[in-house]
Amino acid sequence: MPKFTSHVFVCCNRRSPGHPRGCCDPEGSEALRNAIKAEIQRRGLSCTVRANKSGCLDQCELGPTLVIYPGQIWYGGVSIGDVSRIVEQTIIGGRILDDLLIDDAWLNTKGKGP
Amino acid sequence: MPKFTSHVFVCCNRRSPGHPRGCCDPEGSEALRNAIKAEIQRRGLSCTVRANKSGCLDQCELGPTLVIYPGQIWYGGVSIGDVSRIVEQTIIGGRILDDLLIDDAWLNTKGKGP
Repeated sequence: MPKFTSHVFVCCNRRSPGHPRGCCDPEGSEALRNAIKAEIQRRGLSCTVRANKSGCLDQCELGPTLVIYPGQIWYGGVSIGDVSRIVEQTIIGGRILDDLLIDDAWLNTKGKGP
Repeated sequence: MPKFTSHVFVCCNRRSPGHPRGCCDPEGSEALRNAIKAEIQRRGLSCTVRANKSGCLDQCELGPTLVIYPGQIWYGGVSIGDVSRIVEQTIIGGRILDDLLIDDAWLNTKGKGP
């Protein structure tokens, strides 16, 4: 079978309430990942696109975060309401959603920015 | 900060003993992921290389599995004894380890092969 054309990793890390860095899934519900998985299935893309939960992606202050490979497209502040357009526009259409994109300058700065 | 030059996702999925597909981390120890993380730290690569645990990567029969992005290099049957050469040869050196590589023809076939 071919490799995945898009492989989405959704941070499902959960920390205790009040942790200074926060976390992407404070309720531990994996709801965002499950919504993306369901949208992929609904559109019949499961053979070539996969949404995985992942451990801490280390962009905690910008969460909820996900990363889409192979392009390494980082999205932050993602909500379930964004799932449909992420799948339709980015995964299928190859277009970046500027309002969700984490700029390279902010990556791996632990929320301190460039 | 720059994007990751290598982002490793290590399947830490755990299933009940006797599950027909098996799983990558039957003891739930996350030992393989932790060993890769430690090797990355030991070599001072933490700013540009990250090893994450992930949910089921769906190559269960070929496990323990991991995938290295952005190249989408799939390795199977990985043991802790392989960690040093994965980091040195593949992540640093860019060379594929043929004895660990999961051929595209075997990917996403649920162990049935091409």
